[in-house]
Amino acid sequence: MSTLRLRKTTKEKSSPDAVDAKRFAATVSYDGGGFSGSQLQPNARTVQQELESAVEGLFGTRYRVAMAGRTDSGVHAVGQVAAFDALTRLDQATVGRALNALLPEDVSVRDVREVPSDFDPRRWARRRRYRYTVLNSRVRLPLWRRVAWHVEASLDIAAMQRLAEALLGRQDFLACSGPLEPGRSSERTVIEAGWRQEGCLLVFDIEADAFLPHMVRRIVGASVSVGRGSATVEEITGLLRRKAVGTIGPTAPAHGLCLEHVIYDEGYLP
Amino acid sequence: MSTLRLRKTTKEKSSPDAVDAKRFAATVSYDGGGFSGSQLQPNARTVQQELESAVEGLFGTRYRVAMAGRTDSGVHAVGQVAAFDALTRLDQATVGRALNALLPEDVSVRDVREVPSDFDPRRWARRRRYRYTVLNSRVRLPLWRRVAWHVEASLDIAAMQRLAEALLGRQDFLACSGPLEPGRSSERTVIEAGWRQEGCLLVFDIEADAFLPHMVRRIVGASVSVGRGSATVEEITGLLRRKAVGTIGPTAPAHGLCLEHVIYDEGYLP
Repeated sequence: MSTLRLRKTTKEKSSPDAVDAKRFAATVSYDGGGFSGSQLQPNARTVQQELESAVEGLFGTRYRVAMAGRTDSGVHAVGQVAAFDALTRLDQATVGRALNALLPEDVSVRDVREVPSDFDPRRWARRRRYRYTVLNSRVRLPLWRRVAWHVEASLDIAAMQRLAEALLGRQDFLACSGPLEPGRSSERTVIEAGWRQEGCLLVFDIEADAFLPHMVRRIVGASVSVGRGSATVEEITGLLRRKAVGTIGPTAPAHGLCLEHVIYDEGYLP
Repeated sequence: MSTLRLRKTTKEKSSPDAVDAKRFAATVSYDGGGFSGSQLQPNARTVQQELESAVEGLFGTRYRVAMAGRTDSGVHAVGQVAAFDALTRLDQATVGRALNALLPEDVSVRDVREVPSDFDPRRWARRRRYRYTVLNSRVRLPLWRRVAWHVEASLDIAAMQRLAEALLGRQDFLACSGPLEPGRSSERTVIEAGWRQEGCLLVFDIEADAFLPHMVRRIVGASVSVGRGSATVEEITGLLRRKAVGTIGPTAPAHGLCLEHVIYDEGYLP
């Protein structure tokens, strides 16, 4: 068993004709609107809970499901990665089809594949990619209300883009973070960050080795302040250098954010 | 009063200091998922009913709201056009802001403007433009479930495009129509029709002088049959020529369809 304990959550007995345990990874998409985030919580509907219920429905035993990234309540995903173990003779394609048949309409899996028994979706991930969508129009558009933050003010995209460029490279992002456990490093490497306009949508893509809690939403909140003219790029980068927790913001709403892709070594996963 | 009777739905008295009645037009967007279509119906939530309630909330009197196109239950719009009369001193910008404050989150108006008192959003419309979105992927994607028809089979887009081209020009589209009132012409002019691929989405845009009931959804249903290989372009165009009502289909689901734009003469409306 690896450091990641994925096996059964209940007591397990070996028997002479037992099939081997397999570890599976799956790419997971969800509409975050109906979930209190990705991770298991008591008395709340979460993505992990729905995945574990589907896995239990399929294999008859409850297995722990681990995920690459923790997403907040309301945040969407099209490229989350989950892993779980199961004692099964089913192949990966059958497991994928069966899980989709068992999952509710607001979550689905694709590219289910067997992975090495020590695969850990969080520790093995090399980079994560998030997208944040702003609907920048004078009036709200109902079809976008669940997936984009509506900002009425006209925005200076060039200034927002300058802020994005100032985020690149290895830096301490403590000022963009929600509360952190003591002693945890707040240095991260931003590999790519930029805004682009598509009609009345402003789309922000950001890729980093890893993210701090609320980091993307705080960056977007500050970017929109810069775009509105209520803050300057220099003020925000000054706050970044001062490294006081959670001073960059405000935190943009969760429903504009989507975990797009988790990237592993050498095309190890799609 | 024009042939379109938009004024009060209740009795109206003139008084010496009465303000003039103004006719307003508005571009209307809605998420069709929560509506039993655009047109007023008893005991059903419709777009017209929500617009009339907002207009009543603003002016204190119930006015009739007329719309350019009738959309079915579940069909979305980003460019529907509505018109209504009101006795008011408010200017068009104020009326627009006030209506959006009164409307529920799944419907909004933009570009509210005063129009001539004989403006009729349906009769004056020269062309309509619809978009149909197909999610063509092996697995469903939750974020698209409300706005795209999920088709798992791989599709022959070139064949679908050939069918689109066969629809161009003035033709009798009775075979693509739901039930029609007797004596009503089923000739329409399709000005543009075509598919394009955007990642795993297939987007169908079609523009015509006007559309028959269910016409776009029947065309899309038949197009997907052609794409799957379960019908040929020649079979569908043969049915079109035979002009028997409702023989082209199946009718694609409503939630993939969106009324994009209603076009009037010489930039008369945006």
